[in-house]
Amino acid sequence: MSYFKHHVFFCCNQREPGETCCAARGAVEAQTYAKDRIAKLGLKGKGKIRINKAGCLDRCDEGPVLVVYPDNVWYTYVDKDDVEEIIQEHLVNGRVVERLKI
Amino acid sequence: MSYFKHHVFFCCNQREPGETCCAARGAVEAQTYAKDRIAKLGLKGKGKIRINKAGCLDRCDEGPVLVVYPDNVWYTYVDKDDVEEIIQEHLVNGRVVERLKI
Repeated sequence: MSYFKHHVFFCCNQREPGETCCAARGAVEAQTYAKDRIAKLGLKGKGKIRINKAGCLDRCDEGPVLVVYPDNVWYTYVDKDDVEEIIQEHLVNGRVVERLKI
Repeated sequence: MSYFKHHVFFCCNQREPGETCCAARGAVEAQTYAKDRIAKLGLKGKGKIRINKAGCLDRCDEGPVLVVYPDNVWYTYVDKDDVEEIIQEHLVNGRVVERLKI
């Protein structure tokens, strides 16, 4: 059994001004949004869902990015609506969001 | 196919002084050690291995902890010898290190 059913890592890397990075594209706000939403949905914790910040996930050109493990599914997103869709579709209902998958 | 064959996240969370946390138990140094070793072994990159820092992985009482995905294997460790054993056994040779598994 998986310790977390879905363990989500948002790349929150911050580079020097002018350089491409997920933090400059709203990653920290998106991670906070997802963490709060999962808590409010009662889905936080062991056997359920964990939303983490991570250092550079090394897919900068495709960013901002997140990865869902152990599912092994990577996503990009533009705004909170995209993050909400990943939460509702993938994390709650177990359906991969193909349009955001990378 | 997995974007990274092994994607390793070290909990590097730093709490207030006096509180239990992985950072106070050498996690940052351990992550740096692992990252450098993987680079030197030529195992860094797409299709191979990525060593990341992460925020609190929420297993503080068992810390310091790391998790290897998509393998879905969690470890604790005491020192660099333990980290080296995880690198050589699990990441290089694909054998789970049962004595450090949590």
